[in-house]
Amino acid sequence: MKGKVDTATAFAPASIGNVAVGFDMLGLAIAGVGDRVIATRVAGTSLSIAEVRGLDGEIHPYLSADPEQNTASIAAQALWDARGDGTGLELKVLKGVPLQSGMGSSAASAVAAVVAVNALLDSPLSTLQLLPYALEGEKFASAAQHADNVAPSLLGGLVFCPESLYPSMIPVSPVAGVSSVLLHPEMQINTASSRKKLARGYSIDQWLKQQGLLGGFLLACERGDVELIRRTLIDLLIEPQRSSSVPCFTGVKEAAMMANALGCSLSGSGPSIFALCASQEAAKVATAMEQACRRFGYECQSWISPMNAPGARVESTK
Amino acid sequence: MKGKVDTATAFAPASIGNVAVGFDMLGLAIAGVGDRVIATRVAGTSLSIAEVRGLDGEIHPYLSADPEQNTASIAAQALWDARGDGTGLELKVLKGVPLQSGMGSSAASAVAAVVAVNALLDSPLSTLQLLPYALEGEKFASAAQHADNVAPSLLGGLVFCPESLYPSMIPVSPVAGVSSVLLHPEMQINTASSRKKLARGYSIDQWLKQQGLLGGFLLACERGDVELIRRTLIDLLIEPQRSSSVPCFTGVKEAAMMANALGCSLSGSGPSIFALCASQEAAKVATAMEQACRRFGYECQSWISPMNAPGARVESTK
Repeated sequence: MKGKVDTATAFAPASIGNVAVGFDMLGLAIAGVGDRVIATRVAGTSLSIAEVRGLDGEIHPYLSADPEQNTASIAAQALWDARGDGTGLELKVLKGVPLQSGMGSSAASAVAAVVAVNALLDSPLSTLQLLPYALEGEKFASAAQHADNVAPSLLGGLVFCPESLYPSMIPVSPVAGVSSVLLHPEMQINTASSRKKLARGYSIDQWLKQQGLLGGFLLACERGDVELIRRTLIDLLIEPQRSSSVPCFTGVKEAAMMANALGCSLSGSGPSIFALCASQEAAKVATAMEQACRRFGYECQSWISPMNAPGARVESTK
Repeated sequence: MKGKVDTATAFAPASIGNVAVGFDMLGLAIAGVGDRVIATRVAGTSLSIAEVRGLDGEIHPYLSADPEQNTASIAAQALWDARGDGTGLELKVLKGVPLQSGMGSSAASAVAAVVAVNALLDSPLSTLQLLPYALEGEKFASAAQHADNVAPSLLGGLVFCPESLYPSMIPVSPVAGVSSVLLHPEMQINTASSRKKLARGYSIDQWLKQQGLLGGFLLACERGDVELIRRTLIDLLIEPQRSSSVPCFTGVKEAAMMANALGCSLSGSGPSIFALCASQEAAKVATAMEQACRRFGYECQSWISPMNAPGARVESTK
C-alpha cells in the first residue's frame, strides 16, 4: 500500500434543511458545528466502526457502532464498494451535531464519512460526485432521499437541490452582509415520523403561493436583495403543520422577528429554529432567540454563520 | 390645456404566459406582435372607445366598444380615475394580438391603454406603478388577477410576478443566445373557462417536483445555463390537463423537440404553443412547428423573439 493514503480525517458541517421556502430542496451550511470521521485502511475486507464518540469524548450513548445501522458507515460502504480497492476499512465517528435536532446530523456523518473515504481512493471523486454515496447514508436515517442537508454539508453555503434535478446541486449566491442564526433547544424530533404526519394534498392556491415565495427568495439571493429576502422567507405550508411539536417555536420566532430578523422558521423538521438576519444584528437576534427559548423552559445553544459557511473538508491524511 | 399632452399612442407586446414552469407567475414578452392604443383628451368627463380595429384596418368583428366591456377602457378608466384631471378621454384600439390565443391579448390591450393614458398625465407614473391599473383590465377578461401576461407586456423580457409578491415584478436575466418561438394555430380557447377545468388539489410530490423545476429554471436563466434550461423547462401539472384541447399540441411539441428546442409547452391556456431554443436554431424550430401544425389541419403563424424583447412603449404624443 506504499504511496497510498492510509488514514484520513474529514469534517462535515451541520446544516439548515428546507430554509423555510424550499421543503426538501434547499439547505444552508452552518459554521462551527459538525461531525468528524476518521477512516483508516485495515487488514481484511470488511468495514467496521471502531467507535462513535460524542463531544464529551465519551462513547456515544445512542448511536450504533453496527456498520449496518450507522449513516456514516452505510455511506462509506457505498463509496468503498463502488470505488475502493477491497481492503478493510475502520471508521471512527466523532459526533458534534446533536441527534434528531433538525440540524442535519445524519447528513453530516454521512458526508464526513464519504469525504474521508474519498481521500483514501487512488482516484478521488469530485465533491459533486460524492452526493449519491452520502445520500445512501441519509436515506437510511430519514427514510427519504432528499439532499437538502447532504448538499450544503458537502458544498457549503446555500444549495438548491430538488429531487427533479438529482444528482445536480446548484449553489445559490450567498448574500453579503446576511447571516444565519441557528438555535437548538434541548429536545428531539424524529424526522422520519415527523414526515409521515404531513398532509399529502395541497390546493393549487397553496402551492402557487409557496412556489412564488421560493422563486422570489432564490432571485433575492442572486441579486443580494435583502428586503426581498424579508418578503419571501416564509413557509406557509410545512411550518404550520410542524411548529406545534416545538412548544417554544412561536415565542422564539416572535423574539427573532422583534429583533429584526429577515425571517425565521424551523430547521428541517425541528426542534432547531433558524433565522436569517443582517450580519451586524446576528448577535442580538441570537440572544433574543435564546432568551425566549429559556423562558419556555428549554436549555439551548445557538450558532451564527455567514451565508457562505464552508462545506466538508479533509482535515488531515497520512 | 396648454402644455399638456392631448393625444398619445402606445404599443404593448403579446406575451407567453406561465412559460411552462411558472403557472400564473412567469411571463415572457414577444417581439413583433402587440396591440396599439391611441388615447385622446376630449370634451366632457367620460371615457369612450371610438373604435376597435383589427390588423386588416376593419372594425373588429368581436371586441366590444362598450367601455365597460373592453379591457383597454377598463384599465384606462382605473388609471384616469386615480390620476387623471377629470376631462373626457377617447380611445382607439388597434388589435394586433389574436383573441383567445394564449398570447396575452387582453393584457396587451390593457397595458397599451394604461401606457397611452399615462403619457397624458401631468405627472406620469413609473412603469412599475402601472401594474395595478393594467391588471384591472386583465381581471375583467380572465376572471383572475395574475400578472403573468401584464408584467412582461409592461416591462419586456422574462418577468417573475407571483401573486405572493404583488405588486412587485422581478425581471429575470435574459439568456444570451436563447430565443423564443411562439406558434399560433388558428383556433381559440377561452382562458377563464380553461382555468375552471383545472384540478384543484395536488399531491405534495407533484408540487415539489414542479417547484423544483421552477427554481432550477430561474437559476438557469440567472446563470445563462442553457443545459439547465433544457432540464427544467417542463410543465408536469398544467400542460397535461390542457393539451388535449389543442389537437395539434403533441405533434407540434414533438416537432419542436426534434428540432432541438430546449423545451416546449402551451402559452397560457393555449392554443398557442411556445418553445425556447438556441437563437441560431430558432428559424428551424419555427418551421418544424409550423409544418407539424399544418399537418394537423390548422393554419398558423409564428414569431421568433429574443429573450429580452422590449415591453410597452409610447410611440408618439402631441
